[in-house]
Amino acid sequence: MKELPIHIQLQPESDKTLYEQIYESIREEIRRGGLLQNEKLPSARFLAEDLQVSRTTVDMAYGQLVSEGYLEARPRQGYFVCAVEGLYVIDPLKQGEKHESAQKSSRKAEQYDFSPTAIDMHFFPYATWKKITKNILVDANSDMFSLGEPQGDLALRTTICRYLHGARGVNCEPEQIIIGAGNDYLLLLLEKILGRHVHVAMEDPTYVKAYRIFQSCAYPVTFIPMDENGISVECLRRTDAQVAYVMPSHQYPTGISMPIGRRMELLKWAAEKEGRYLIEDDYDSEFRYKGKPLPSLQASDSNGNVVYIGTFSKAIAPAIRISYMVLPYSLLTRYRQECGFYSSTVSRIDQTILNEFIQDGYFERYLNKMRKCYRMKHDLLMGELKGFKKTFRISGSNAGLHVLLTDRMGRSEEELAQAAQETGVKVYRMRDFRMEEKKEAAAMLILGYASLSPEEICEGVDLLKKAWL
Amino acid sequence: MKELPIHIQLQPESDKTLYEQIYESIREEIRRGGLLQNEKLPSARFLAEDLQVSRTTVDMAYGQLVSEGYLEARPRQGYFVCAVEGLYVIDPLKQGEKHESAQKSSRKAEQYDFSPTAIDMHFFPYATWKKITKNILVDANSDMFSLGEPQGDLALRTTICRYLHGARGVNCEPEQIIIGAGNDYLLLLLEKILGRHVHVAMEDPTYVKAYRIFQSCAYPVTFIPMDENGISVECLRRTDAQVAYVMPSHQYPTGISMPIGRRMELLKWAAEKEGRYLIEDDYDSEFRYKGKPLPSLQASDSNGNVVYIGTFSKAIAPAIRISYMVLPYSLLTRYRQECGFYSSTVSRIDQTILNEFIQDGYFERYLNKMRKCYRMKHDLLMGELKGFKKTFRISGSNAGLHVLLTDRMGRSEEELAQAAQETGVKVYRMRDFRMEEKKEAAAMLILGYASLSPEEICEGVDLLKKAWL
Repeated sequence: MKELPIHIQLQPESDKTLYEQIYESIREEIRRGGLLQNEKLPSARFLAEDLQVSRTTVDMAYGQLVSEGYLEARPRQGYFVCAVEGLYVIDPLKQGEKHESAQKSSRKAEQYDFSPTAIDMHFFPYATWKKITKNILVDANSDMFSLGEPQGDLALRTTICRYLHGARGVNCEPEQIIIGAGNDYLLLLLEKILGRHVHVAMEDPTYVKAYRIFQSCAYPVTFIPMDENGISVECLRRTDAQVAYVMPSHQYPTGISMPIGRRMELLKWAAEKEGRYLIEDDYDSEFRYKGKPLPSLQASDSNGNVVYIGTFSKAIAPAIRISYMVLPYSLLTRYRQECGFYSSTVSRIDQTILNEFIQDGYFERYLNKMRKCYRMKHDLLMGELKGFKKTFRISGSNAGLHVLLTDRMGRSEEELAQAAQETGVKVYRMRDFRMEEKKEAAAMLILGYASLSPEEICEGVDLLKKAWL
Repeated sequence: MKELPIHIQLQPESDKTLYEQIYESIREEIRRGGLLQNEKLPSARFLAEDLQVSRTTVDMAYGQLVSEGYLEARPRQGYFVCAVEGLYVIDPLKQGEKHESAQKSSRKAEQYDFSPTAIDMHFFPYATWKKITKNILVDANSDMFSLGEPQGDLALRTTICRYLHGARGVNCEPEQIIIGAGNDYLLLLLEKILGRHVHVAMEDPTYVKAYRIFQSCAYPVTFIPMDENGISVECLRRTDAQVAYVMPSHQYPTGISMPIGRRMELLKWAAEKEGRYLIEDDYDSEFRYKGKPLPSLQASDSNGNVVYIGTFSKAIAPAIRISYMVLPYSLLTRYRQECGFYSSTVSRIDQTILNEFIQDGYFERYLNKMRKCYRMKHDLLMGELKGFKKTFRISGSNAGLHVLLTDRMGRSEEELAQAAQETGVKVYRMRDFRMEEKKEAAAMLILGYASLSPEEICEGVDLLKKAWL
């Protein structure tokens, strides 16, 4: 048997997955010079056999190393160590000592990441998902493997329709729902429905990705300032925007919940002129902690001016590439005429799995669990931040998975983020979400808590105290 | 227990699936008036329990009935029989007799469908697919449920890269491959990469859906006539097209394989001017029966002017919403700059299943089986069509899943298709694929054979003999 150029010792008892263990072993081996530049790695098949793990596990470890630039994949040759200048952060001669410190410093930089987009997958009912998948495949016949309806399977659309009515007050029929592989795809499809040269108004700050999608659709975009109730309809009126993209439930990233008065103003704006629409991105409406939850904007729309978009990527798992868009009838007609021929981007199998997951009550149960979990983290974070109130205004905390800290001391976002990073905490700067510079604005930092453990939240906030108070 | 308003007798021994049996029972019940307009059907859950079948089976039957207009789904109320004028084709009083004849005539109209797009799913290794899915889910952890790389998982891209090199001579690195949920989506993404106002040239006749996608991207499209070697590069030169969409392996629907000389001409055209590209849609290259298969056009491209697009929907199953696009480096750079933020439309789980299906040799084995199956059907059809040679020219039969019949008797396509339909055979008219009318052209009919059984092919051709000879 060929000898492996690396020695990997897997620890089945470890908290880390096998994939992480393999990935870290190879990465460390490269970093400490145990694997040389241009050295060929064993094939994934060979390594999997040698380690008695699945091929997928090794593929994932190799994939991660390639995407981080440690390895390169040469087709039909295999994986090779990249030739990168300065890769060896550790002098192999002083390995022991430096290795330790390099690890510490690299870990420090990422130790407490208050990411506003990450979610907690700890409670995801993998076993249930697997069971449903298995059952569906047992029943599956060629129908299941055929191409489904372009809009998505009626069964799933009916289920989503019911869920949206109950949970978000959305008024629609299953025929108004279009299922697609992610919000990005649905926005591309919406472009085809709305047509070209549509002038879009967006809240500022906003979800930058949506902006980039509108930009790549060559839509002219105007940014509208926000007050404490959300987008300024007064400013919106001064533009010739035809469509406004808004997040009324829990604006990203400001966390503002738009009150009913502002919603009615906004709906009035849309109804005043033929062809005006509001795109309501209800991205994390499943999670709210304080106050009576307002139904969706779509629920108050009596003129058919709202396009409602939601996703299961946030509430279930990012890998569930299933989002949905509720079209008003005027746009549904246009969709059928102009875009009805676009094939569905979601397989019937995946749609059926999700449908059963919801219908059999697992989704509701999982949401309840996650609501409790996130509320606990939210309350914990808010408790820990009590000492911050003199120095910061804390806002946006009635819903969603992140809160906002506004500095009262005249410091800059850069200064605060840098000080945090030096203690090993990553926080997010509001300026990265602002489209137009707001010079006089006080520094605002965004703290997401969904993916951190309670201990990490406490430790992270302790470090922020040292950095900021 | 509540009594069901319908009596459904499932026959486990029947050739028909349970879903078909339920669907047909209810449809017949509605047609013969046993279920009245606006009558409520039992809930899917209730019916599933009563019939001892899975919920999905009933959902599918109901879904089919809704999409055909027999039922309507009223949210939170259930399924109701539609109020459609003239729905009752059978007088309930004369049920026995008329029922029989109505069934006959409706079956006749669709009995032998020589569809050029349908495929045979009979040999699909459902058990293997299920086994792989199960194994992957056993290993699956939160990594598998996370959002993968925008371009697709490296492991699958590497596998596709190897497959394309071996099977189609495609020269590329995994980093050039973008995985997406179907060709339609990839063409939408390509629009974002190529930019706006791109003048596209297409073969005429062509794949109408691709045309509709270009149209919905507002691309000006020019149709280029074809000779026996494919698209006329001479005519192409007379346009100011920047991009040409071609199917060199087996043009759809003419079945023409572009010889190497024409390919080189086409590549020369693309290389002559900055920013020209060829989109090569290699939609059914897996299946060829006669002559040495030419590698892809991309294989001969030394200047990086070809965008190669392929799919697993045809070779594996339509439900596998996984296609791939190989970008030349010039467009890859643009993709990364302009579109790198678009999230992947395919879940990591589905990518991993497909990857193992290919890597473990099942794909190759399945392809070999399907090649044999389709070749058998192809040879059978060609044999059956022998008697047609005086009346028709038969062409396009060296590859793919359909052949062409060109009438020598001066009849019209309408006349021939109508005569076929009257005997219960559906054939496809070339004029439905032509973009510009070709008045002097002889009538051409398209016969796809992939989804028909050998018996159906023989019986169908027998009926065509009666209709046409």
